[in-house]
Amino acid sequence: MTQTTPGTTPTIGIGMVGHGFMGRAHSQAWRVAPRFFDLPLAPRMAAIAGRDPETTAAAAQTLGWDSWETDWRRLIERDDIGLIDISSPGDTHAEIAIAALEAGKHVLCEKPLANTVAEAERMAAAAREAATHGVFAMTGFSYRRVPAVALARQFVRDGRLGEIRQVRAGYRQCSLVDPAAPMTWRLRADRAGSGALGDIGAHIIDMAQFLLGEPLTAVAGTLETFVQERPMPDGTGTGHVTVDDAAWFQGRFPSGTVGSFEATRYATGRKNQLTIELSGTAGALAYDLEDFSSLQWCDQTVPAERRGFTRILVSEPEHPYHKHWWPAGHWLGYEHTFVNEVADLVADLAAGRQPSPSFDEGLAVQRVLAAVQASSAAQGVWTRV
Amino acid sequence: MTQTTPGTTPTIGIGMVGHGFMGRAHSQAWRVAPRFFDLPLAPRMAAIAGRDPETTAAAAQTLGWDSWETDWRRLIERDDIGLIDISSPGDTHAEIAIAALEAGKHVLCEKPLANTVAEAERMAAAAREAATHGVFAMTGFSYRRVPAVALARQFVRDGRLGEIRQVRAGYRQCSLVDPAAPMTWRLRADRAGSGALGDIGAHIIDMAQFLLGEPLTAVAGTLETFVQERPMPDGTGTGHVTVDDAAWFQGRFPSGTVGSFEATRYATGRKNQLTIELSGTAGALAYDLEDFSSLQWCDQTVPAERRGFTRILVSEPEHPYHKHWWPAGHWLGYEHTFVNEVADLVADLAAGRQPSPSFDEGLAVQRVLAAVQASSAAQGVWTRV
Amino acid sequence: MTQTTPGTTPTIGIGMVGHGFMGRAHSQAWRVAPRFFDLPLAPRMAAIAGRDPETTAAAAQTLGWDSWETDWRRLIERDDIGLIDISSPGDTHAEIAIAALEAGKHVLCEKPLANTVAEAERMAAAAREAATHGVFAMTGFSYRRVPAVALARQFVRDGRLGEIRQVRAGYRQCSLVDPAAPMTWRLRADRAGSGALGDIGAHIIDMAQFLLGEPLTAVAGTLETFVQERPMPDGTGTGHVTVDDAAWFQGRFPSGTVGSFEATRYATGRKNQLTIELSGTAGALAYDLEDFSSLQWCDQTVPAERRGFTRILVSEPEHPYHKHWWPAGHWLGYEHTFVNEVADLVADLAAGRQPSPSFDEGLAVQRVLAAVQASSAAQGVWTRV
Amino acid sequence: MTQTTPGTTPTIGIGMVGHGFMGRAHSQAWRVAPRFFDLPLAPRMAAIAGRDPETTAAAAQTLGWDSWETDWRRLIERDDIGLIDISSPGDTHAEIAIAALEAGKHVLCEKPLANTVAEAERMAAAAREAATHGVFAMTGFSYRRVPAVALARQFVRDGRLGEIRQVRAGYRQCSLVDPAAPMTWRLRADRAGSGALGDIGAHIIDMAQFLLGEPLTAVAGTLETFVQERPMPDGTGTGHVTVDDAAWFQGRFPSGTVGSFEATRYATGRKNQLTIELSGTAGALAYDLEDFSSLQWCDQTVPAERRGFTRILVSEPEHPYHKHWWPAGHWLGYEHTFVNEVADLVADLAAGRQPSPSFDEGLAVQRVLAAVQASSAAQGVWTRV
Repeated sequence: MTQTTPGTTPTIGIGMVGHGFMGRAHSQAWRVAPRFFDLPLAPRMAAIAGRDPETTAAAAQTLGWDSWETDWRRLIERDDIGLIDISSPGDTHAEIAIAALEAGKHVLCEKPLANTVAEAERMAAAAREAATHGVFAMTGFSYRRVPAVALARQFVRDGRLGEIRQVRAGYRQCSLVDPAAPMTWRLRADRAGSGALGDIGAHIIDMAQFLLGEPLTAVAGTLETFVQERPMPDGTGTGHVTVDDAAWFQGRFPSGTVGSFEATRYATGRKNQLTIELSGTAGALAYDLEDFSSLQWCDQTVPAERRGFTRILVSEPEHPYHKHWWPAGHWLGYEHTFVNEVADLVADLAAGRQPSPSFDEGLAVQRVLAAVQASSAAQGVWTRV
Repeated sequence: MTQTTPGTTPTIGIGMVGHGFMGRAHSQAWRVAPRFFDLPLAPRMAAIAGRDPETTAAAAQTLGWDSWETDWRRLIERDDIGLIDISSPGDTHAEIAIAALEAGKHVLCEKPLANTVAEAERMAAAAREAATHGVFAMTGFSYRRVPAVALARQFVRDGRLGEIRQVRAGYRQCSLVDPAAPMTWRLRADRAGSGALGDIGAHIIDMAQFLLGEPLTAVAGTLETFVQERPMPDGTGTGHVTVDDAAWFQGRFPSGTVGSFEATRYATGRKNQLTIELSGTAGALAYDLEDFSSLQWCDQTVPAERRGFTRILVSEPEHPYHKHWWPAGHWLGYEHTFVNEVADLVADLAAGRQPSPSFDEGLAVQRVLAAVQASSAAQGVWTRV
Repeated sequence: MTQTTPGTTPTIGIGMVGHGFMGRAHSQAWRVAPRFFDLPLAPRMAAIAGRDPETTAAAAQTLGWDSWETDWRRLIERDDIGLIDISSPGDTHAEIAIAALEAGKHVLCEKPLANTVAEAERMAAAAREAATHGVFAMTGFSYRRVPAVALARQFVRDGRLGEIRQVRAGYRQCSLVDPAAPMTWRLRADRAGSGALGDIGAHIIDMAQFLLGEPLTAVAGTLETFVQERPMPDGTGTGHVTVDDAAWFQGRFPSGTVGSFEATRYATGRKNQLTIELSGTAGALAYDLEDFSSLQWCDQTVPAERRGFTRILVSEPEHPYHKHWWPAGHWLGYEHTFVNEVADLVADLAAGRQPSPSFDEGLAVQRVLAAVQASSAAQGVWTRV
Repeated sequence: MTQTTPGTTPTIGIGMVGHGFMGRAHSQAWRVAPRFFDLPLAPRMAAIAGRDPETTAAAAQTLGWDSWETDWRRLIERDDIGLIDISSPGDTHAEIAIAALEAGKHVLCEKPLANTVAEAERMAAAAREAATHGVFAMTGFSYRRVPAVALARQFVRDGRLGEIRQVRAGYRQCSLVDPAAPMTWRLRADRAGSGALGDIGAHIIDMAQFLLGEPLTAVAGTLETFVQERPMPDGTGTGHVTVDDAAWFQGRFPSGTVGSFEATRYATGRKNQLTIELSGTAGALAYDLEDFSSLQWCDQTVPAERRGFTRILVSEPEHPYHKHWWPAGHWLGYEHTFVNEVADLVADLAAGRQPSPSFDEGLAVQRVLAAVQASSAAQGVWTRV
């Protein structure tokens, strides 16, 4: 006899702002998380908001949201929505996040937290205030939830690396290699805040701070714009590029670790190469996003004869997040970082815990970005964060 | 003003038998496919069937099916179900598939098609008959839908490899390395049909035949059981292993290509290493499932000075399936092979086309498995498929 | 004040037959070994022998030999020569080696030991007889002296792999991929004995037997000639290829290990890819000659969380042979295998020890080659060695 | 009849100062080069000079030099010596090189050219003067003669990379990871000049300038000493480290290329990892010394579908230097860079050509080192070279 399937778990209504690339990724996360994680609260994909009625309606249909709005303020007003997911461009983050938190809605905000330190500071203050009422905010640095990265953090926390002397991190893409690639809003400082630095450099700053468990305190850096004029997409001459194409900087951590960083959109042949390596007195770790599911681990305490980097295929039940997914030896992909992220977020909310990365952690990244820009403007001199 | 999201596409009701590992994977496929592919028919997760009411009800809840049944025959009877997805063990495939096809339901059947050639032949006959009425069956060799594998097939079809002389394929896991690993039903011939050969060897046989576009016609092989007695899980002494732990064979294709194959559960350190390499007069391809998103390509027509294997990171819109997923440089994972599979299946059904691999293609694999077993029993002599 | 450098070590005069590729490699070995190893006997490059006076004289000059002969018998007659190094083609080995041993000269003979089992048996008998008088013979399987391979042997001997279940070995080159590559003597059975099997397959047979420390006892194999007619180099039509282009076989070792082997000259894009992998209950090893200086080691006793293949860069003083060469982190190359070989040989001779591989070990390889050919001729059936 | 081998080529007598690690490497080069290269002048290993009679005599014996001296001035006085090879520590280079050049002897001087810019300037001036008389000097940046690096230079010179936007180079070793590693003269600024920067950083500066064909004009950098006190080897307390353990800097080239550099002795698990990557508008190159014989090449003009980094195994006759060595697919090692170096040097001398790198090129590296130190002392600010 046919039996219908009832719902049994308390739900939390999600309202999402934005339906671009990040909106698609977050939709997949909300849809999939409850199917693999045993969540204490079942996310309900209540509504998305977008400016244009037609594209927003189509997105709701395609992405599977129950309803849609043309004003994000409506999401905040609705009683059936308990969490606002901000997947819209960076210059909208502050206003939405602060309004949502003040209205008692939890917030998940995409990275980077804001376009300026001032905005990020106001957001972090609002989050701190909200937390006193049990309302929480999270910054969406989703790469923390790559299982291999989470495993690296475990190794560091467990002291496997000893004293960490150096971090070297890079995020290299090839999107601007072609000088004839057209002008876009991402290449204008007034819209995008910064270029490679804020877009992809932010990821490696957060990852370094996450893995080490402490923030950068000083940086010395240089920004460069290789191609300063690019053709307008509509054929009306050229437009002036006002953001960085590439950024390099060194940074210092309180415990004495020195980091070196590169963010670039000019790395020919590197599609999405985020690399990070930690060199410690007892061991080393190396990760490359282009080899998504493996973590390289060198145990310095092994006798020299057998020592080297071990390629750990991160796909076992013993590895972070994997027990929720497939049997051993079956890999995850890009989108699973978002699923892991919202699963952790929902578990924290149900437990009344502050999720991580907090807005304060997002702010810490923003301050580093600003310090790198200041250092570059001052001929590369060491600058406090 | 809040707008609710209506459904707009004609739907096809899915009824799935089984809710183990494969049931989870297929559920994810049905759930996700319509969110990324613009499907002409919207799959509706109508019902799953399982023997035990309690676990079946729980699975329906967790995996997101609208209803559940304790008899798979009910799925076939229901008018709201148009496709039967068979994710239950191999010894159940023939009965369910034939009943479903005769009742006018499309069928997706997990690999291997059956436990014996005789069953597979009856299934293939039923599928051929059904196809004359526009009812279609597909065998679930999902690795054909790994984007890198689909790209390899394109290269072969486009003639980029020239005349292909050799195929070397292996599927290596480490699940039985420990001699104290307990006895299971998978190690009994009466339940599982065969061991490594049928379970994982079937994948590389299908992949080789798919990539070359022709079937094996003769094989010479050897099966081996390294550990013949294993402890019973309940502590009651030991049980006798009656399937192969590892299999090796060579095979011939009509065009003169020679293939060499290895399937083993004793490959220490290899978690899920499916490898395949094609050597042609104009080029070579190599793939390793443990480096999921890359395809190694050697263009023999490039001058010697610059020649070598190119690691193509399969993540661009130009690559198979990827335009439906994320921007360039964002990787997929294991489960996406199933999503791609059902997306292709639904598109074929809507167009009235035979999906691939058909049951005849599944039968072809079954015949190779049988020939390898016969060759091994005859001291390794070459044996016609 | 200028001081001239006296010689202080007793010397051993070397007489080498042949001055082709192997002659060059052996010359380099004799020249270089005393500069890096503290040898008890200083090799003196006394004379080479070749048929043609002009090319032999030129070779003596280029390769740095003190004198030259046009008849190898003269080398054996000379009192100042204590060791005959046979670097000439395989069909000359038996006569020279036996004559030399009977005359009381030590012998180093390039692999394969001979073109037939019968010849190899006579050579091995002569070597056994000579050894009773303190005169020794060595077969030149130089890949045993790749430091990474020697390290692998240490791991096996020390029991690090536990019980070894499988060996998989391949030697893949691309020299015959082009069907228009011309006919040569190497493709004629009457001159070369066999094709890929004897030329490169011999290496992986010896390496497997060396690493496991036991000989193959039975094999089942197939030989294939893909291109049977090739253009004559002088333009006079085509010649018939009478050797194998590729060979595949499985083999059994006394302890229960099963090996799988491939030797081919049709592996597009593989220049000199000798690979070998050992799968044991406690660990696994993998080596690839195209990554010359590294050995992949998987320690199965490490917790799953941190387990994987470790890439050991074999370049430390703790690694075989390396303490004689450069500081840590400085790699060796192909020719050093010969230097290590003659250094070991000279040390053994000075100590009155049988060097390894002996002629008996060379004969063991020859017997496997013959058994594979017999199996292939008998439709692939398992055949005793 | 025995024929002795006469010498036929005019010779050039070599006198070498120093017999440490570099002395061994250079000895091997002089010994081996004439056996593989068809040199117009045959190097004769005439004499070495060292301070201590006993060790110098032993070195002459082991390394195969005809005679030895205890004063390098004697080498310059001897008529049978035409080239002085300076393999002694950096603080001795200037005096010896200038004296040799003034005496009409050609000079090969190990890198770095000197310990200070002032010394290097005097040496370069002496070399320029000598060149007007047909007497030439070369700086021993031997990594230019790694075949893969020479191939990379060809690609750049042929314009295959288009406009080069970025260079990223690193030289990472692990020699100082252990904080208990003892104090040595290499860690004292008065003896060694600088630390990681001058020792290994010099190599990547030269390599970047060589590959791009232009010198750095400005740098911004930071030096760091992680462990400032180390135990004295004799147990008498600790000594103060006065050189850098690690250095990072960015640099600008005249054509607009930006380089980023790291030199460190604290890279856990990296034994001798020199890496360099060039990102151009038409292609990219990447090299890693720990994968000695391969060059990674990304041809940006290949369609996206087939694009990626190609691992070129540098071992073909078409590749630089390889036609002088072994058949295709047989790798070289570390020491061959020195053999290639002296072969090029001798060919240049015989032709009356200035060899490269000249002392001016060595001086250019020295100036960059000084500018990095100045920048670091000035808080990282951009500094002209």
